[in-house]
Amino acid sequence: MFPQTIAWKDNKVVILDQRRLPAEEVYLECSDADMVAEAITTMAIRGAPAIGIAAAMGLALGALGIAHKGFPPFYKELNAIYATLKATRPTAVNLHWALERMKGVCVINREKGVETIKELLVNEAHTILKEDIDINKRIGRHGKDLINDGDAILTHCNAGALATGGYGTALGVIRSAWQEKKNIAVVATETRPLLQGARLTVWELTKEGIPVTLITDSMAGYLMQRGEIDLVIVGADRIARNGDVANKIGTYTLAVLAKEHKIPFYVAAPLSTFDPTIKTGKGIPIEERNPDEVTAPWGHRIAQEGIGGRNPAFDVTPHRYVSAIITEQRVIRPPFEKTIEQVLGSTWQIDRSSPC
Amino acid sequence: MFPQTIAWKDNKVVILDQRRLPAEEVYLECSDADMVAEAITTMAIRGAPAIGIAAAMGLALGALGIAHKGFPPFYKELNAIYATLKATRPTAVNLHWALERMKGVCVINREKGVETIKELLVNEAHTILKEDIDINKRIGRHGKDLINDGDAILTHCNAGALATGGYGTALGVIRSAWQEKKNIAVVATETRPLLQGARLTVWELTKEGIPVTLITDSMAGYLMQRGEIDLVIVGADRIARNGDVANKIGTYTLAVLAKEHKIPFYVAAPLSTFDPTIKTGKGIPIEERNPDEVTAPWGHRIAQEGIGGRNPAFDVTPHRYVSAIITEQRVIRPPFEKTIEQVLGSTWQIDRSSPC
Repeated sequence: MFPQTIAWKDNKVVILDQRRLPAEEVYLECSDADMVAEAITTMAIRGAPAIGIAAAMGLALGALGIAHKGFPPFYKELNAIYATLKATRPTAVNLHWALERMKGVCVINREKGVETIKELLVNEAHTILKEDIDINKRIGRHGKDLINDGDAILTHCNAGALATGGYGTALGVIRSAWQEKKNIAVVATETRPLLQGARLTVWELTKEGIPVTLITDSMAGYLMQRGEIDLVIVGADRIARNGDVANKIGTYTLAVLAKEHKIPFYVAAPLSTFDPTIKTGKGIPIEERNPDEVTAPWGHRIAQEGIGGRNPAFDVTPHRYVSAIITEQRVIRPPFEKTIEQVLGSTWQIDRSSPC
Repeated sequence: MFPQTIAWKDNKVVILDQRRLPAEEVYLECSDADMVAEAITTMAIRGAPAIGIAAAMGLALGALGIAHKGFPPFYKELNAIYATLKATRPTAVNLHWALERMKGVCVINREKGVETIKELLVNEAHTILKEDIDINKRIGRHGKDLINDGDAILTHCNAGALATGGYGTALGVIRSAWQEKKNIAVVATETRPLLQGARLTVWELTKEGIPVTLITDSMAGYLMQRGEIDLVIVGADRIARNGDVANKIGTYTLAVLAKEHKIPFYVAAPLSTFDPTIKTGKGIPIEERNPDEVTAPWGHRIAQEGIGGRNPAFDVTPHRYVSAIITEQRVIRPPFEKTIEQVLGSTWQIDRSSPC
């Protein structure tokens, strides 16, 4: 079984505080939308699909707290909450996607009255969570055929149950292969600065009994050079229409290394991670976080005070480095501009014609 | 001015304890060879040229402590100390080179009596230190012409004054360019697991007033992709006859990234870092250190107990990724098999005919 990152319980959003893993399993109980927004910003919860779900639940929670009975003032206040949640983190598009979907429910049902809308919003947030787990299992089913018995799989950051509603994207593919009794081993990069690989991926895979070895980010090239890695699989925070992939900082380096060593480089992501409004990776905003995460991780100074540091949280891997993108619908291969359009064409048309 | 890593003082070897930088400047006073060996093994002192000097001083210190008056028992005991010092770390060849040179002094002068030999060994260790600083300044003079005004220079680990007798190899080149008033900026990778970039390079460059920005190892690709890096310069722990370069883990990844982005990749190293006995990088032994340095740095566990980790301390960059090697004699360019032979041919012949 996989850990549960986020749940709705007694009109509260309960979040497993990932900042404290693996040392402690502590749950945050968010009783209003601001607390959810804070949990996203501070990365108590992270991972593109997971923060989409958190934002949806945050908006539902916010809706419950609005006292107005009439639609216009209710909607105005809901929009302010929407804006707060949307501003938490800029790169992962799932967050915008989930918020748009929630807003759509509100707008479509505007005639049904505020109390009904509140109920529908809570239901929709539940649906998004439930769907996400189902989507990940479908990603796993499609992806597992790309993994051979005996493979050593390199993964970066955490694209697991913790990063999603459950099961995981990249780790979902690994989980599926493992459940099919494939004899696999995972190499997890620690993923500086916030060490999601060391803290979360290792924890999650170990819970499931999947063999995992931890390395620093700088060791990936060494292992590939020695033939110790058979494939790379990562998640994604946003994918442009041409297949360029934004994901955790360091992903691009792994993709370059994979190409140099002729190792397949796979991305596992739900269709909600694709951004139809963005043509290439150049259009994806990259979050720059506080350099203290680099220079003084967890308050422990590793470089002297006052020193300049950079802290881009993501990078963009151009599509030419990507062997395939594993979605819930199917495995997409180059030429991505064409295949992405094929897979998402109908979905986008539906989205574009929706009243939100 | 540059910091002094190692000195001989009142028949003690005084070592700046680099494990405690940048928080504290603490000096270890080693009164016997075992203490010096311990300082090398535990990386209180590190960097290929610096541990060569430390080993030479350790052997001189060991010689002083031998009570025997006759050469045969003196030489037997010296050989045991030699073996202890040689076994401290396997990858950097400078350590072997310095110990062989010291042993040569002993053997050549065997007829002069033990007391004279002790004096000569202490002198030789001083000479090795003095020569190393001079060599680094010459490396700097040759290398600075490869740096243009306005360049952003990426460096990995610490190949600075701290890694040598003084001035530094890679940082010596940067220092030379800076002293010539070139307007340069350095980007230092933190260099996990032991963070020599964050702790040592940042400290050393800041002391000199050279602008430096700290990044995680995983951010190098991102900066290169954005055109924010003009060249890469690193040190070396051992160079094979064909130009393959062993250096701190992560160097190979930077070399692959540099090639992908058509950025020059330079190695700065003294001739003592070349190993004429090794034809290609495949012959270079790679030290595997305790995985705790990865899973629980400085006692702070980042992944749960019992998890497997890898910890190769070095990797090998094949010569095809190296734009040039900057030595004290001149800048060596491909084809390295030929140019390395040209530069070192005579040196090697002298070495081979020496009585040690």
